[in-house]
Amino acid sequence: MVLRRSTGDHIVITHTDDFGLPTDPEHNVAGVALRAIADAAGCRDGFELRITKNIKPGSGIGSSAASACGAVVAANELLGRPFPRAELVEFAMAGEVVASGSWHADNLAPCIYGGFTLVRSTEPLDVVTLEHPRLYAAVIHPQIVIKTSEARSVLPREVPLKDAISNWSNLGAFVSALSSGDENLLSRSMVDTIIEPARQHLLPYYNDVRSAGLAAGAIGGGISGSGPSMFMLCRDLACAHDAAAAMAHALTPFDIEFLTYVSPVSRTGTAVM
Amino acid sequence: MVLRRSTGDHIVITHTDDFGLPTDPEHNVAGVALRAIADAAGCRDGFELRITKNIKPGSGIGSSAASACGAVVAANELLGRPFPRAELVEFAMAGEVVASGSWHADNLAPCIYGGFTLVRSTEPLDVVTLEHPRLYAAVIHPQIVIKTSEARSVLPREVPLKDAISNWSNLGAFVSALSSGDENLLSRSMVDTIIEPARQHLLPYYNDVRSAGLAAGAIGGGISGSGPSMFMLCRDLACAHDAAAAMAHALTPFDIEFLTYVSPVSRTGTAVM
Repeated sequence: MVLRRSTGDHIVITHTDDFGLPTDPEHNVAGVALRAIADAAGCRDGFELRITKNIKPGSGIGSSAASACGAVVAANELLGRPFPRAELVEFAMAGEVVASGSWHADNLAPCIYGGFTLVRSTEPLDVVTLEHPRLYAAVIHPQIVIKTSEARSVLPREVPLKDAISNWSNLGAFVSALSSGDENLLSRSMVDTIIEPARQHLLPYYNDVRSAGLAAGAIGGGISGSGPSMFMLCRDLACAHDAAAAMAHALTPFDIEFLTYVSPVSRTGTAVM
Repeated sequence: MVLRRSTGDHIVITHTDDFGLPTDPEHNVAGVALRAIADAAGCRDGFELRITKNIKPGSGIGSSAASACGAVVAANELLGRPFPRAELVEFAMAGEVVASGSWHADNLAPCIYGGFTLVRSTEPLDVVTLEHPRLYAAVIHPQIVIKTSEARSVLPREVPLKDAISNWSNLGAFVSALSSGDENLLSRSMVDTIIEPARQHLLPYYNDVRSAGLAAGAIGGGISGSGPSMFMLCRDLACAHDAAAAMAHALTPFDIEFLTYVSPVSRTGTAVM
């Protein structure tokens, strides 16, 4: 993303891709986030924002969060860095709500802070950055569309207490394993008894892709966001490439186009280049 | 507790207190746990076990777990320490089920390992020991009886997903805060939106005692086990004494007898003296 101040008081957005995202700043996540930070700084300048999205919208990898975070980090730089990261997340939330319809920071917090983050609360916002070992992610993005509204509607409104307790146990163990670097515990604790079982029928390839990634040596993985993408966490880059290849191979019989990504888990978050 | 081998193949239990606990080894938590470890070691010797319980049964502080753990740690010592701690927890679970009717290690795991433990799973047993800063506990034990069956029956079988998510967030933050030693985060995350709200009407003094403990400078606290005891975590011994005194003062208008306890959070667990 490239952000410039401009004369006048308008925000002008251009896309260098052909994903058909809105350019009206009031309906664009980056535009709304940019307006939020500029208003908070008392800045009435205009801005030109050029966006090159390398990920098709609706991936489940958080591409709308990436746009919102890019806009606020760039604007904070142009304004002389008046805001700490916690506030940048809040400005980006104003943008994210345009894309997702809900006030949440699940994608924004790791995008701003880097690494693993836990959002303890959104009102007030309370982001916890988690200690973690060096890890690598493999992601497969099947080019199908799962509507966020459908991915949400399949979630139960009530869950059995015993399943809730199981997820509490695993989440606590996951946080502890990230901190201690215990890879076996990480692997055992990456189990979700509530959300994934409810959503996996939306991803017909779920079991095959997940099994293939694990068989390739990944520590654990599952649905990325609300899908359709899936991810694996791996101990090194070679394993992440293996996991991506194995997931791709497992997806082949389903005759769905896909892209794969391999990356270290960033420790820096959104950065000015 | 004092454990001796004896001639014959019987377990003989004596109590030096007057709490009226069973001495039949098949109905005594320590007796059942002792039988479990002896059987696993292929030992058919008899044992004499003398128990001095300093805590009235039904406290919510885990006194039955203490008896089960004491028996297995002592027996493991007499047998030449054949079993690692994870197995000791399993033997103790056989005893605890006699007292609580359920197969769980919530009290046993910290009693054996010391410190803070997370039981990720009971079948198979998976205990995670958590890093934590030096902390002190203040406990008040009102001398009333809350039946475990009643404390369980008030728990919902299903919980709203949003409350489950709130508890996941707080639990993850709590584990992270223990690890990093972030006292403010510990305090913010010691919030339970599911179990305490369901049980607090069984403890008419809940709000007063909790508020008093926090006002005295405790980091956080709530119901210990399924009650009637309540606890506070504190950063130092002086604060723990203040919190205990404040809880005692808050309980006075309720005209209920009580005992208070102050202790560092043990790092050693059940030990042979």
